[in-house]
Amino acid sequence: MSDAYRAAGVDTEAAAKAVALIGDLAATTRRREVADAVGGFAGLFDIGGERLLAAAADGVGTKLEIARATGRLATVGVDLVAMCADDVVCTGAEPLFFLDYLSVGRVVPERIAAIVEGIARGCRIAGCALLGGETAEHPGVMNEDAFDLAGFCVGVVASADRLGPERVRLGDALIGLPSSGLHANGFSLVRRLFAGDDLDEVVPELGRPLVDELLEPCRIYVGDVLRLHRAGLVRSAAHVTGGGFLENIPRALPDGIGARVDRGTWVELPIFDLIRRRGGLSDEDLFATFNMGIGMVVVVSDEDAEAVIGQVEGAVRIGEVVGTSGVRIV
Amino acid sequence: MSDAYRAAGVDTEAAAKAVALIGDLAATTRRREVADAVGGFAGLFDIGGERLLAAAADGVGTKLEIARATGRLATVGVDLVAMCADDVVCTGAEPLFFLDYLSVGRVVPERIAAIVEGIARGCRIAGCALLGGETAEHPGVMNEDAFDLAGFCVGVVASADRLGPERVRLGDALIGLPSSGLHANGFSLVRRLFAGDDLDEVVPELGRPLVDELLEPCRIYVGDVLRLHRAGLVRSAAHVTGGGFLENIPRALPDGIGARVDRGTWVELPIFDLIRRRGGLSDEDLFATFNMGIGMVVVVSDEDAEAVIGQVEGAVRIGEVVGTSGVRIV
Repeated sequence: MSDAYRAAGVDTEAAAKAVALIGDLAATTRRREVADAVGGFAGLFDIGGERLLAAAADGVGTKLEIARATGRLATVGVDLVAMCADDVVCTGAEPLFFLDYLSVGRVVPERIAAIVEGIARGCRIAGCALLGGETAEHPGVMNEDAFDLAGFCVGVVASADRLGPERVRLGDALIGLPSSGLHANGFSLVRRLFAGDDLDEVVPELGRPLVDELLEPCRIYVGDVLRLHRAGLVRSAAHVTGGGFLENIPRALPDGIGARVDRGTWVELPIFDLIRRRGGLSDEDLFATFNMGIGMVVVVSDEDAEAVIGQVEGAVRIGEVVGTSGVRIV
Repeated sequence: MSDAYRAAGVDTEAAAKAVALIGDLAATTRRREVADAVGGFAGLFDIGGERLLAAAADGVGTKLEIARATGRLATVGVDLVAMCADDVVCTGAEPLFFLDYLSVGRVVPERIAAIVEGIARGCRIAGCALLGGETAEHPGVMNEDAFDLAGFCVGVVASADRLGPERVRLGDALIGLPSSGLHANGFSLVRRLFAGDDLDEVVPELGRPLVDELLEPCRIYVGDVLRLHRAGLVRSAAHVTGGGFLENIPRALPDGIGARVDRGTWVELPIFDLIRRRGGLSDEDLFATFNMGIGMVVVVSDEDAEAVIGQVEGAVRIGEVVGTSGVRIV
């Protein structure tokens, strides 16, 4: 995996080992209603009545550190909901409710209000209720202005409407939905590359201050994906987060089947080129870490591709499903 | 609220203000299916078919710091599940599944395995499936050996079987179920009081090393409460966590109605007396912070009290529901 990312202090091999361990441990808790645990974009649980609950937990990673350092807390809550709700919708489920966990070194009501306002905004965009949460003060363990955020989202889908790899066929089209920027992944690398930069300075390639680019909130795809799904147009979907194209697209495809992605079919946002040059990164590093301008990939039949593109602004056909496993960027 | 706790760095007034703000913000995300949001022990969401989902998020607080400092990570996962699942069961719901969020300074698979083994054990005790989770590495933001844990539990209850204040009648009995010790609250205060102590030294009053007492895992009450509830014996329940007796028992009672708690009806575990003496704490401080040996209070009819006591080892009648609001310890 990405050498660049390892140099930034993120050990993806250790993480993969940890994930395998967690899968084994989760299996010791299995109930018969579990339809899919640890591994997919969201866990699936049979709630009866031919319906599945889909549940996902996630955080915002070290994008939070940019927010903390600049005191700009208004949008990380949107990011938090995006990371969770867009995992849930990959199963075809409608997000129903969300809970947050916020740990802080010291409770400052105005700061908490700013963060939770963002969470509430994210919930309204994703159409889910903020049903609860926990605010934990950790004096003496976290610095006074430090905080961490975790989110949990639960959705529901009719069993027959579940999206996933089993629906995918050779020759299906990959439709990319545009991202708003980095979203909330790769920030340990990004923070290393831009360490020491004046975040408030306008960067010519970006046309705005770096901090605005870095904190640009994640796009939330729930509305788009559900609308397409309800029209019967979606087979599978991949939320492009940690691990970028190379790790996430295969999660939407059956074993032994892969994808060809045609570069140049979409606009790779300028921030990614800036990161490439700043870090001397390879294409593989980039595609294994970032969304490159496509935050959600929906897999649709070849004949439905044009209809799907017509229904989501900025959607483009970025490739197709092929008979060789893995993701080949051409 | 507790002056002692404020001196330990926990600002309970600021926290109360933050909770009120969060409630207002959550209301902006309300969906018609929300039966109870921010405020009860768990959020309730109508999933159709006369059933409610109950969901709770929580953490382990700074008990984690004791685990980190001593490298004893095996039981904080049990604590995490307890904090969430025992909130869910207060609504009468059966916990179905659990997700965790683990943030670390550096991924060390063995450490993660130790923590998640505890979570899996907790899930088995609570009867819920470990359905997913997130392990996030925050290099450069958290110290290498730092970590934080959040958990999220979802359960289900038939609408007609929902427990809560509306079932409570004057004269009902409060049955206390014994705790295993501190559980996972009040640790910012506890850590301050015992700062500098040798945690490995045997404390005569406790009959064991202090670290063993502090890290004693939470008791999980799911099995007991569900068994009593299925026998039709429970009206309401209070999980005694942060805020102790004084804040949690009223959450199980209707407005304007209170409880009289008779001290001496149960054994106040020796750790609480040690804390009282070490900190020069008042009874009000103690009862506003700790479980004092009773981790779960179930409210039952006077005539069912003996039957309930007979069904849970160590259960005792600790008081009754009275016409004056608040909790009076006599």
